[in-house]
Amino acid sequence: MKDFVDLPVQEMLSAIRSGDRVSLARAITLTESKRPDHRKKAIDLLTAAYPFSGNSMRIGITGSPGAGKSTFIEALGMFPPLSQKQIGVLAVDPSSRMSKGSILGDKTRMQQLSRMPNVFIRPSASGNHLGGVAAATRESIILLEAAGFNTILVETVGVGQSETDVYDITDIFLLLLIPGAGDELQGIKRGIMEMADGILINKSDGSNQERAQLAKVEVERAVHLFQAKPSGLPTWVLNISATTGLGLDTVWQQIEHYFQETTASGYLQSRRTEQREKWFREALHDGLLQIITSHPQYTELLSNALRDVVSGQTLPPTAISTLMANIRLA
Amino acid sequence: MKDFVDLPVQEMLSAIRSGDRVSLARAITLTESKRPDHRKKAIDLLTAAYPFSGNSMRIGITGSPGAGKSTFIEALGMFPPLSQKQIGVLAVDPSSRMSKGSILGDKTRMQQLSRMPNVFIRPSASGNHLGGVAAATRESIILLEAAGFNTILVETVGVGQSETDVYDITDIFLLLLIPGAGDELQGIKRGIMEMADGILINKSDGSNQERAQLAKVEVERAVHLFQAKPSGLPTWVLNISATTGLGLDTVWQQIEHYFQETTASGYLQSRRTEQREKWFREALHDGLLQIITSHPQYTELLSNALRDVVSGQTLPPTAISTLMANIRLA
Repeated sequence: MKDFVDLPVQEMLSAIRSGDRVSLARAITLTESKRPDHRKKAIDLLTAAYPFSGNSMRIGITGSPGAGKSTFIEALGMFPPLSQKQIGVLAVDPSSRMSKGSILGDKTRMQQLSRMPNVFIRPSASGNHLGGVAAATRESIILLEAAGFNTILVETVGVGQSETDVYDITDIFLLLLIPGAGDELQGIKRGIMEMADGILINKSDGSNQERAQLAKVEVERAVHLFQAKPSGLPTWVLNISATTGLGLDTVWQQIEHYFQETTASGYLQSRRTEQREKWFREALHDGLLQIITSHPQYTELLSNALRDVVSGQTLPPTAISTLMANIRLA
Repeated sequence: MKDFVDLPVQEMLSAIRSGDRVSLARAITLTESKRPDHRKKAIDLLTAAYPFSGNSMRIGITGSPGAGKSTFIEALGMFPPLSQKQIGVLAVDPSSRMSKGSILGDKTRMQQLSRMPNVFIRPSASGNHLGGVAAATRESIILLEAAGFNTILVETVGVGQSETDVYDITDIFLLLLIPGAGDELQGIKRGIMEMADGILINKSDGSNQERAQLAKVEVERAVHLFQAKPSGLPTWVLNISATTGLGLDTVWQQIEHYFQETTASGYLQSRRTEQREKWFREALHDGLLQIITSHPQYTELLSNALRDVVSGQTLPPTAISTLMANIRLA
């Protein structure tokens, strides 16, 4: 069999658009490769796929470890109204860079969902991607959309700035909390709550019910104090249970309502426009770094400058100022 | 009077090193200017000041709004053992970029401390600095140290990634919490707790005492679950009260102990080495961007590329790939 990466770009794209999952998976792997020839091919493929992208609901989901994100995604994905949808599940997990285990790497998770014919689950990007995990996920979204997926769930474990990353690549941002039991240690930063379009208090079942109601009241009180969101829509707070299915219908209604309203108001488009600009600026940064570090003359200048900075001999801005004075554009 | 910025660099430095506060304040303002001639002068001054820097305890402090950071800094600064020290107080407040009010802008705060002859308080950097608030604060630290300040307190309000910024520019990182009352909404991310060298449960006085003890037990339990810190030292958890002075002696003992241990183990030096490298990489990014955006030929290429990206016509990596193919280093 001819290797996927050796196919002409148009054949790659046809295979992906025809619904071939193996080709889709290989295309995503191709975008994650750092090899210059792979990278070039990946960009050609993404360029060809781009006109077919954009037609999905990009839904970001965060929450502390133990909040039940995977269970929630599985429950939402199996929820009847979604069986008509083509669902892609991606993860942004910066911790996997340090090979501490990735969110979706564990094959025992989302077992039911992964067997559905309308679902494609992609474990966390390897972090090998030149532009980092966020850029890798953005490219995966383009490929998934070109393959016909119209509901993209992007999960993050919430390490470092991964929530901000996910916010920057999705249309709507959901935060999962659990009631009671060490609220102080659930550790959700206020800034994350402020970014959330919907806050879901998961595990609001059984003996948790009372605490869950209290948590809802508390969260609602906090949400009232926040500034109005740029979407113009209020943040909704719901008691749900991914295991019993409680509240999933309302979650889905709210998501659909959000997309209707933000499409009508133009906010959805302006948010995506901003995201494209941000993506551009990040890619520009990586591109410039690439150019300079791959230029033989500057490689040495750079490593000498870094050595002097690390030893404490030269102040970083001084070193950079000297370096920049030596760099000439043709 | 001759304007400070027109002085020769050696005179600037002499004025700063002689203890002249007005010169120090103007020097910091100079480093915050974006004007190319100011920037050049600022780098010359920083280069001259660099050999005199490094001899301070750089202490980072974070906590939610309302945790009592300013009161704590004032209390610690007024604490008798510190009256022998030269204390500089800086703030990293990204929100001030959006002119939402800065941490230390409010003149009514830290009134007592600001009147002490051994204390210099600098309100939050304007965010005008080319390299952002973190770079501005790093440069302020160099100038403060050259001026003889040996205890630098860097406060952050904890918006966005400001805690990470402060962690990256200080030697020790303290987190302020308050007991009870909406712990869920205090909103401290687990990652921030993991970064902390010391966690101070403030307001552990009066009717709060019982809740404060409980909070300490809970936080200690959480801290036990974290991975060992790179310093090799355990995270300490203390009940304190900035208003009654409870626990301030222990806080100071712990800070001194931390510096003794990490100096002896070499961790302090290796942390600063890493920070210099990070500073270098960030400055490199800004420098490259500066070079390309100030080159007339590329300005147009860049703005055309951005236009096509924003309109959705061109995928960001595609645009950058094309751009990079057109950029030539001499």
